[in-house]
Amino acid sequence: MRLINFAAGPAMLPTVLLERASQQILEWQDYGFSILEANHRGPEFGELIQQTERDLRQVCQIPKNYKVLFLLAPARAHFAAIPLNLSAAEQTADYLVSGLWSDLAAGEAEKYCQVQRHQLADSYTIDDSTSYFYYTDNETVHGIYTSCPTISSQVPIACDMTSSLLTRPIEIEKYGVIFAGVQKNIAPSGLSLVIIRDDLLHRARAITPSVLDYSLQAEQGSLLNTNNNFSIFMTGLMLQWINEQGGLAAIHQRNIEKASKLYHFIDEHEFYHNPVSAAQRSILNVVFQLAEEDSQAKFLEMAKQAGMIGLKGHRKVGGMRASLYNAISLADVDKLIDFMQDFATQ
Amino acid sequence: MRLINFAAGPAMLPTVLLERASQQILEWQDYGFSILEANHRGPEFGELIQQTERDLRQVCQIPKNYKVLFLLAPARAHFAAIPLNLSAAEQTADYLVSGLWSDLAAGEAEKYCQVQRHQLADSYTIDDSTSYFYYTDNETVHGIYTSCPTISSQVPIACDMTSSLLTRPIEIEKYGVIFAGVQKNIAPSGLSLVIIRDDLLHRARAITPSVLDYSLQAEQGSLLNTNNNFSIFMTGLMLQWINEQGGLAAIHQRNIEKASKLYHFIDEHEFYHNPVSAAQRSILNVVFQLAEEDSQAKFLEMAKQAGMIGLKGHRKVGGMRASLYNAISLADVDKLIDFMQDFATQ
Repeated sequence: MRLINFAAGPAMLPTVLLERASQQILEWQDYGFSILEANHRGPEFGELIQQTERDLRQVCQIPKNYKVLFLLAPARAHFAAIPLNLSAAEQTADYLVSGLWSDLAAGEAEKYCQVQRHQLADSYTIDDSTSYFYYTDNETVHGIYTSCPTISSQVPIACDMTSSLLTRPIEIEKYGVIFAGVQKNIAPSGLSLVIIRDDLLHRARAITPSVLDYSLQAEQGSLLNTNNNFSIFMTGLMLQWINEQGGLAAIHQRNIEKASKLYHFIDEHEFYHNPVSAAQRSILNVVFQLAEEDSQAKFLEMAKQAGMIGLKGHRKVGGMRASLYNAISLADVDKLIDFMQDFATQ
Repeated sequence: MRLINFAAGPAMLPTVLLERASQQILEWQDYGFSILEANHRGPEFGELIQQTERDLRQVCQIPKNYKVLFLLAPARAHFAAIPLNLSAAEQTADYLVSGLWSDLAAGEAEKYCQVQRHQLADSYTIDDSTSYFYYTDNETVHGIYTSCPTISSQVPIACDMTSSLLTRPIEIEKYGVIFAGVQKNIAPSGLSLVIIRDDLLHRARAITPSVLDYSLQAEQGSLLNTNNNFSIFMTGLMLQWINEQGGLAAIHQRNIEKASKLYHFIDEHEFYHNPVSAAQRSILNVVFQLAEEDSQAKFLEMAKQAGMIGLKGHRKVGGMRASLYNAISLADVDKLIDFMQDFATQ
């Protein structure tokens, strides 16, 4: 039986994509070899990576003055790569710390430059000499969403969209650089994407490892090194699936509907509690506490029996969490709500 | 039709592994989800990565005082990670430059420390104050193999075994650190392995990106960040396959037999030429020139018609190259030789 997987990532993938991938692993199209054996310098893969970039540009409406990179690196590599590519050693970088991931990113940046930390606010006063303003738009651990900040300077905004890229339309023009690990809404784990404005290239510090030098990778079409060909292939399948679903606007509508339904249920039900203020609530990660804390193990066990997994909250904060990424359907959310209703009233 | 793929990597995989992978993509064992959806902190993946490490230790006879890392990074990331983890800024590192890859590695290391370059020799005089001695044991571009060097010092030896790990038994004890991208003989591209002696940990420079800090990754069991779960899974399948083939000693015998047969044919046939001295010839990448240089395109085209691809030499050196990695059988080599015979005499 296929379980419904509410984990925060690596996440569930649409079943149809698994079927398509399974086929292409035996033979990729009619090429005579598997997608797993594709040569990154061969014409078949060359066409794939170019088509995938075109599709990403179309789906996300990426302007021409931005480069797209597919990098064999975890999202966390960019915690170092962002300061290494965008700041000088003596410069300051400003970080909005809204949760665990942005805190870790700020900590890593401190290895490479001065870091000015900010708490969540309506707007931010930033010195023009700072190298960039960094934030994480969806903090998965705490279920907190932050919209693109208003800052007092023209410095570029760097954003970790690991959990949110491809979940809604984005005004790319607001950003200097966006990065995302693929394991939530894009592809199987093992790849990250970077979308960077042209004028921010060619600033990398001399100590930047070549594989994390955005300019070098842009010059080489993301093939300075052998890449994760399979995750790039899966990214292509996902972009095709998103278009089949009606594009990011339709995906976003569905994501709002899913989250609203679950938050509404939690708010109405005295057995469940979500601590996040309405304006900050993530539509992607819905965290909740049970009225009886010692019921948690039983909740997870019975959920599994009912066909649902991945509901345990992050180990740093405890409680429960339902991650409602793209591959989770409204029917999946209905099934979760039915279960939660039954669990609370039994 | 399944083609025989002689490319230098990403390489051919045993057909049976493609079939096993294709199945597990639909559902991993009876877990209710795909291997592509596995959570890196879940018990199923935890068991997988531990079993894969145990199997690698058994297959390669890795002593207990070595750590094994599975890293979401290309082999080329270690060109930076080796000096960052093993040398101080004012220290020297010694590099044996035997071809393109060791030359690139030495160039990257110059960002982080003083580099002393050596040419191929019978032995090497090394200052005791140097941080490590680095070499690439199989240079894929030139088809050159270098056995573990004799050096005049006790400094650790660092070795790039991207193309050779799992192709023969290795005396791990001779090395301080070994790294390898997986895309030749281990798994689909998107992962690298590190085998490092315990006493070399905890030396990483402050500027080392966390994801490339071997000590941090060792402490976290390679899960500081979300990993390439699928390539780790495929590594496990490959280790199982190697045991089915009789282990590394049997694999090595077969690899020697394959290469000997092809070199013998090339040496006997006046139409083909291999420029490498017998002692240095790689058993993994057999480079060769055609007597008529303008026949190259025709050679590649007719080889493809005969069911064989990936025979074009590296763009830096030209000519032809047959990479005889583990998944290439003796029958595949026989077929290549038959084709080469026909091509030369037509």
